[in-house]
Amino acid sequence: MAAMEEVSNKQIVLKDYVTGYPKESDMEIRTRNLKLEVPQGSNAVLVKNLYLSCDPYMRACMTKPHDDTYFDSFTPGSPIAGYGVAKVVDSDNPNFKKGDLVWGITGWEEYSIITSTQLGLFKIEHTDVPLSYYTGLLGMPGMTAYVGFYDVCSPKKGDTVYVSAASGAVGQLVGQLAKLFGCYVVGSAGSKQKVDLLKNKFGFDEAFNYKEEQDLDATLKRYFPNGIDIYFENVGGKMLDAVLPTMNLHGRIAVCGMISQYNLEKHEGIHNLFCLISKRIRMEGFIVVDSYHLYPKYLEIILPCIKEGKVTYVEDVAVGLESAPAALVGLFSGHNVGKQLVAISHDE
Amino acid sequence: MAAMEEVSNKQIVLKDYVTGYPKESDMEIRTRNLKLEVPQGSNAVLVKNLYLSCDPYMRACMTKPHDDTYFDSFTPGSPIAGYGVAKVVDSDNPNFKKGDLVWGITGWEEYSIITSTQLGLFKIEHTDVPLSYYTGLLGMPGMTAYVGFYDVCSPKKGDTVYVSAASGAVGQLVGQLAKLFGCYVVGSAGSKQKVDLLKNKFGFDEAFNYKEEQDLDATLKRYFPNGIDIYFENVGGKMLDAVLPTMNLHGRIAVCGMISQYNLEKHEGIHNLFCLISKRIRMEGFIVVDSYHLYPKYLEIILPCIKEGKVTYVEDVAVGLESAPAALVGLFSGHNVGKQLVAISHDE
Repeated sequence: MAAMEEVSNKQIVLKDYVTGYPKESDMEIRTRNLKLEVPQGSNAVLVKNLYLSCDPYMRACMTKPHDDTYFDSFTPGSPIAGYGVAKVVDSDNPNFKKGDLVWGITGWEEYSIITSTQLGLFKIEHTDVPLSYYTGLLGMPGMTAYVGFYDVCSPKKGDTVYVSAASGAVGQLVGQLAKLFGCYVVGSAGSKQKVDLLKNKFGFDEAFNYKEEQDLDATLKRYFPNGIDIYFENVGGKMLDAVLPTMNLHGRIAVCGMISQYNLEKHEGIHNLFCLISKRIRMEGFIVVDSYHLYPKYLEIILPCIKEGKVTYVEDVAVGLESAPAALVGLFSGHNVGKQLVAISHDE
Repeated sequence: MAAMEEVSNKQIVLKDYVTGYPKESDMEIRTRNLKLEVPQGSNAVLVKNLYLSCDPYMRACMTKPHDDTYFDSFTPGSPIAGYGVAKVVDSDNPNFKKGDLVWGITGWEEYSIITSTQLGLFKIEHTDVPLSYYTGLLGMPGMTAYVGFYDVCSPKKGDTVYVSAASGAVGQLVGQLAKLFGCYVVGSAGSKQKVDLLKNKFGFDEAFNYKEEQDLDATLKRYFPNGIDIYFENVGGKMLDAVLPTMNLHGRIAVCGMISQYNLEKHEGIHNLFCLISKRIRMEGFIVVDSYHLYPKYLEIILPCIKEGKVTYVEDVAVGLESAPAALVGLFSGHNVGKQLVAISHDE
């Protein structure tokens, strides 16, 4: 065996817990030396990170741990953790060998040592699709859309479906799955460019720019004259309050995210929950990690859809680890168009 | 046939639509003459009302009709409509004959003509239990508790269950059903007397007076150190907001009523709905009228429980039609202890 190689490992580190909107300056870049070898008996794998994923849930991990935290907080002074696509450089784990491509939770750095106690890594078996898709369409956000739409929304053919943050990593797929299922789909997003994508690229029946609407209640009634059967909730706050009175009897609300609320000290109050009774609505929250056992089944369904052009996916790719903090922060002002990710190495 | 008898018919009439807390003076008593005969071909039944039910949902019917009304509003100048127990005096309907006892939607008056287009009347087959129970335990509130607990809460043995407004018409039965099912049950109510009932009469494991608690979050954490699996929601507002962070992973909230909100111009804002995601909670509203087909099954289950003393029921009986407005208004200040009803005739 060659002498152990030592490399410099660039990292993005959280400086301290965040309140309010995260800023680029909440993170810093630093370099540490790293030996490209995992200790024997550690059961760990050493990976070279290729793509990092920027996801809204990461905002919760930037908050100081408290009683009701169900997302593990990041550790200030340590690299940010998040989903990514990586290549195995060295392995002491029998399930992975050098050269394997994987996706799962890794670190915001060039190389990461991933121990077996963390959330499992998924081995990438299909490489005839863009590798970056494993941060999105073929990774956590894709599974989120799949589980949320089929399992939580209980769709029926002909249902009217409303998706907020509809051009995002999850929303764009929810809309396409709903269309393939035979639903009528309307999405909202925050710019003309995104609205155009929804209508012309993803095949939504209708779409609107919520920032241009003065009266969301009236807007929703205009787009859904016969009411909403399914609401796929990504934003929370005023949008949720406007949706509730527009829901139909026995409607379903899949609560996936509430990105409009994550940077507020106290979340906005929702006033229209009596509609849950009067309209017999089921409102259900979910987190995809509970459903990863369905991943092989998801791949079976989605890979042919991709190859046949039935499902498309738009990515917003920032280049270089240095650009990761701005890319993450940009999620919360809607800067990204489509799935936000960071390409940190082309050395696949 | 004897000459048609004409009687004077005392009625409680809604004077006008109500905003804010209803007052006795929103209703008035009046007398009309009535022939004790239904017209041939009308398919109607004429009943003598025996017991009238006071239910929180009736507040919604006192409000001016608007877009999102799913409860039919009362008609100002006409008798109030509500659940009751009655005896058939004359019938042009083949399903009912003179002398039958029935329960269902009737009028707040001594005699009512019930047409077939209204919600069906249920024929009372079992009279070896108190007839008044058909306004509560054996009527709409009983069915509400049954459907809400078994179908909406998806209980498991050992679940921790919290019931608000727990000594009310629905809550007292929910708690008893949950205990029989093998759950740990805590209830809240608004007086020492009601708390005593919960613990000593209905067999709740614990109970507390919410009016004496300064910090509902802390109170709930004290009574549920291991969290709440099932919340049976009868009150809404601040209580709901305090419950959400105390819920366990995969908890269920059956949304039955929100009595604390019915008299507010705008319902209080709920801030903790992000818990639906972090704890994967299902929150589901329901209305019992969707489930009346299960009534025969419910009777099969509940009648033996009553006869064997496994289920008990506390009623708060106002006497005389004149006392009905005060009884109804009293619901919204928690004046009633147990199921509120009005006995208007003993002529069974």
